[in-house]
Amino acid sequence: MTEKITSAANPRIRRLVDLRKKARLRRETGLFVIEGTRLCADTPAQFIREAYATEKWLQEAEGPVRKKFEGTPLTIVTEEVMAKAADTSTPQGILCAARIPSWTREDLFGGENGKKTAAGRCPLILVLEDIQDPGNLGTIFRTAEAAGATGILMSRGTVDLFNPKVVRATMSAVFRMPFLISSGLGEELTAMRKAGIRSYAAHLGGKRPYDALPLTGPAAFLIGNEGNGLSEELTAQADEKIIIPMAGGAESLNAAMAAGILLFEAARQRRNQ
Amino acid sequence: MTEKITSAANPRIRRLVDLRKKARLRRETGLFVIEGTRLCADTPAQFIREAYATEKWLQEAEGPVRKKFEGTPLTIVTEEVMAKAADTSTPQGILCAARIPSWTREDLFGGENGKKTAAGRCPLILVLEDIQDPGNLGTIFRTAEAAGATGILMSRGTVDLFNPKVVRATMSAVFRMPFLISSGLGEELTAMRKAGIRSYAAHLGGKRPYDALPLTGPAAFLIGNEGNGLSEELTAQADEKIIIPMAGGAESLNAAMAAGILLFEAARQRRNQ
Repeated sequence: MTEKITSAANPRIRRLVDLRKKARLRRETGLFVIEGTRLCADTPAQFIREAYATEKWLQEAEGPVRKKFEGTPLTIVTEEVMAKAADTSTPQGILCAARIPSWTREDLFGGENGKKTAAGRCPLILVLEDIQDPGNLGTIFRTAEAAGATGILMSRGTVDLFNPKVVRATMSAVFRMPFLISSGLGEELTAMRKAGIRSYAAHLGGKRPYDALPLTGPAAFLIGNEGNGLSEELTAQADEKIIIPMAGGAESLNAAMAAGILLFEAARQRRNQ
Repeated sequence: MTEKITSAANPRIRRLVDLRKKARLRRETGLFVIEGTRLCADTPAQFIREAYATEKWLQEAEGPVRKKFEGTPLTIVTEEVMAKAADTSTPQGILCAARIPSWTREDLFGGENGKKTAAGRCPLILVLEDIQDPGNLGTIFRTAEAAGATGILMSRGTVDLFNPKVVRATMSAVFRMPFLISSGLGEELTAMRKAGIRSYAAHLGGKRPYDALPLTGPAAFLIGNEGNGLSEELTAQADEKIIIPMAGGAESLNAAMAAGILLFEAARQRRNQ
């Protein structure tokens, strides 16, 4: 029999709210919250741990979407409870607790001897230092997947990937794009070098334009914080400083845009190889 | 003598708040509001009509920034008045009423016989249909300037360019990038065709990949609404449907990202010509 929750004071609902608001609880439990029909339906079933839906959503959901939740413990909640649990101001009526995906260096970098990742692809990595804007981080995940990147490395100072705003902006790439959060990006660069991956720091002081790089081999791009760019310390540890040439009075690009332009140049070169 | 306003009920302050909130008043007066040290300092002086600053800002502002406002009628306001007038939650203490820039088709397209714009550049146009997200529109302006675009055409259904969130995201490109707002984008495509500008609709049903296009000649890219993409009606009026090839489970790109990838491919081809 399906359970029903009618009070927002229910401990399970209060825990959902905490999961949504507190990065620390997400880290401790390995769970985060996803909302909305599209995102919940696009999430691979093995990640979904609990599902909460309103009766209205259950009545209106189309067959293929409902089928998705057949194997998941489903709890019915009232509209009021859903409004309390959800992050969005007009919730669609479905919300899930999902498992945080976990990846290894091999998933991102490939083996030490080989040049391919487990998925058989030539490594194309993004290294993010302290990105702060949730929309930027989410867009970076969405774009990196579309460009065929093999993984994303993030500094500990990066905005939490499982913040609901970030998750929404990833368009579910958060479940498919291998990532690691590291307290020492410099060490990751060393590990990449051992794996034959060349690292390029996007830097306003760079000389070589990004489109003059040979990007058909294993490569990584370093992208800095929105306000300050890459730290000099991390820049110095990259193999090369590069630049995206800009016209007019423009002084810089949005961090997500810079990442997208670099990754799609690599995709272009690999496709035309 | 410099005027001082100490009450948020002052009619000039109430008008600033209205200018910030009401697109219609902005259209009627031809004025909009810009906020913050960086944006106000980067705005060409001929656009600034009124400046409002707190005493703290005036004391702390550096010489070159203060010099900028020497020729402008400056009104001192209290911190409380600034908090009321400003859109941001922690205002920096400076806010200006600026004139909305005005451009002609020739600024964007170049002359009917020539192939260059007034600024001597080969036309590279963005056509935006009903973009809704303020951050997206602002990022598009910022990115288009960096890529060397010559102009941006927007449908009437596009979010207002002079909305404070959009203006902030443009990083002052709003003053430098020629634009037109049109109630008939189809007619604009016809005018472009006459001016020798080829139009490409970014469409998930497109066949030719964007990087296979010859983009060193006059070109325009059509970008659709975030949720729905380009309308079939407008797509049919473009010279060609094109696609940005995507890997993995990605179904689409963010609208600003798609615009940036297309424009920077044109910039790349033009630079390497």
